[in-house]
Amino acid sequence: MHAITIPEPGGPEALVWAEVPDPVPGEGEVLVEVAASAVNRADLMQRMGFYDPPPGSSPYPGLECSGRIAAIGTGVSGWAVGDEVCALLAGGGYAEKVAVPAGQLLPVPEGVGLTEAAALPEVVCTVWSNVFMVAHLRPGETLLVHGGSSGIGTMAIQLAKAVGAKVAVTAGTAAKLERCAELGADILVNYREQDFVAEVERATGGAGADVILDNMGAKYLDRNVRALAVNGRLAIIGLQGGVKGELNIGALLAKRAAVSATSLRARPLEEKAAIVAAVREHVWPLIAGGHVRPVIDRELPLSAAADGHRVLEESGHIGKVLLIAGS
Amino acid sequence: MHAITIPEPGGPEALVWAEVPDPVPGEGEVLVEVAASAVNRADLMQRMGFYDPPPGSSPYPGLECSGRIAAIGTGVSGWAVGDEVCALLAGGGYAEKVAVPAGQLLPVPEGVGLTEAAALPEVVCTVWSNVFMVAHLRPGETLLVHGGSSGIGTMAIQLAKAVGAKVAVTAGTAAKLERCAELGADILVNYREQDFVAEVERATGGAGADVILDNMGAKYLDRNVRALAVNGRLAIIGLQGGVKGELNIGALLAKRAAVSATSLRARPLEEKAAIVAAVREHVWPLIAGGHVRPVIDRELPLSAAADGHRVLEESGHIGKVLLIAGS
Repeated sequence: MHAITIPEPGGPEALVWAEVPDPVPGEGEVLVEVAASAVNRADLMQRMGFYDPPPGSSPYPGLECSGRIAAIGTGVSGWAVGDEVCALLAGGGYAEKVAVPAGQLLPVPEGVGLTEAAALPEVVCTVWSNVFMVAHLRPGETLLVHGGSSGIGTMAIQLAKAVGAKVAVTAGTAAKLERCAELGADILVNYREQDFVAEVERATGGAGADVILDNMGAKYLDRNVRALAVNGRLAIIGLQGGVKGELNIGALLAKRAAVSATSLRARPLEEKAAIVAAVREHVWPLIAGGHVRPVIDRELPLSAAADGHRVLEESGHIGKVLLIAGS
Repeated sequence: MHAITIPEPGGPEALVWAEVPDPVPGEGEVLVEVAASAVNRADLMQRMGFYDPPPGSSPYPGLECSGRIAAIGTGVSGWAVGDEVCALLAGGGYAEKVAVPAGQLLPVPEGVGLTEAAALPEVVCTVWSNVFMVAHLRPGETLLVHGGSSGIGTMAIQLAKAVGAKVAVTAGTAAKLERCAELGADILVNYREQDFVAEVERATGGAGADVILDNMGAKYLDRNVRALAVNGRLAIIGLQGGVKGELNIGALLAKRAAVSATSLRARPLEEKAAIVAAVREHVWPLIAGGHVRPVIDRELPLSAAADGHRVLEESGHIGKVLLIAGS
């Protein structure tokens, strides 16, 4: 098969479309013939040599895919060759075939196309596990999503609205904020021109955000704590603004608040399977019912993954950048 | 009645035993004739002028008491004049009488004396709400308790052991560590001589602590994050080591860990009542069964509360310092 390989870490040009050996599904795994994958920020980190795949997983980038089951390993039940699926991956999605632990498979949801489904696994699992399983967002509460027009952001807006929460977003352009509003966001903050702490405080009558989904890490840590409501929960899923920041524990304590930080990729198989099962139970019906949709910025050929990386580096996109196999 | 008043903030001598008006129980409150109160570190902060009582609560210090119900306000059911109780207070325990929201009352547990019961409400509610309701300590997990010989520490050791957890403690003397061991602590760290991160790592086969109960805040923040296990939860309940500290979010993310900070005093009535109800359900049977006991360092007359404050300031105590009314 062919896959996007990274012979040496570097810029987008470090991604090389090359012939490699086919993966073989191990016990509890299935082999998926990839229809599409999607670009995640973690892929850019991996390309630059800062985010090695977990031991035992594929060396190629790609944290999600859609496709058809081509073969089934031992000890797998409930799936058949030919099934249309999408999957959460520890790596290897940028390839014509990938071996996937069965617990990380999801059926293509009703009403979603096969390639489009590649936009779902990583964002849905990330948002559901953080906003709902860790931070327990409840109906009537306010969620603040940084990067509201990203793949994660566009899904977080829709899922939070679907459960009856109020949603505030930050983004860097009027066009991005407009798209967030179309998806249901109630409070729009242009972070280049406005202070999100002040805007969220104003829009919530001084209460603040009950849950914050943050991809900035250190740079926003102090402001995020200030923007939290009493009993607020800050869920950090990215470190785009740095790794170490000053935490005002006194402010956290006065609010009885909490800071969590997680990543999906390093979780053990059983935790991933639990998240995927929760997503299938809680989110798949919302998608089938048309309440939540994948938001896709553009589709590129898988062999041109480098262009996809450039799109994310320039941050001009809204939603997911798909990579289509066989095109 | 008489109460300990604070005419001007200052050292222990700022505490003045004086005649003051009797409190009147409002709607939903009872009046308790105090048998005993106990000294908490927050009382020292309040004495120094750094920790004002929440609006509407008694101006006198004292976050817990035991005694007999002397009068019952409107809208209270389930309690009768003469009942022996102990209570979680927002203030006012250093007095001969105190008005208490009924949701913060607990019966004196079976097998515990009336004065002894004053040692229970604050530590039991703090430990239960943080270690179990927020951090969800589970059987088989490891709890690290800083200040293992404090009132909070001695209760945390016993409750964690009672639910089948492993317990590590830090303390500053061999005598304190020995008492922690008698209460069930498995891993003893003298923080003056040993590095708790290294000791906990060694004693857990490299895994770290699943839950940490911390009273030091900033000073221990980085080391606490290093000592956490994967999926670990750091529960901060005190800021004795400072308010602002550097948080390594990258380390937190790699461990999928969380930091929470809470205080009991500022919680609204319904949250306090929920904690008290959970304590009555889960902890009172452990006390009645003899599995968990209040640990009392000494008893002093309530009018000599200043001496109790000096004991806590010198940190020579093990367990709670009680203040006995009418003595």
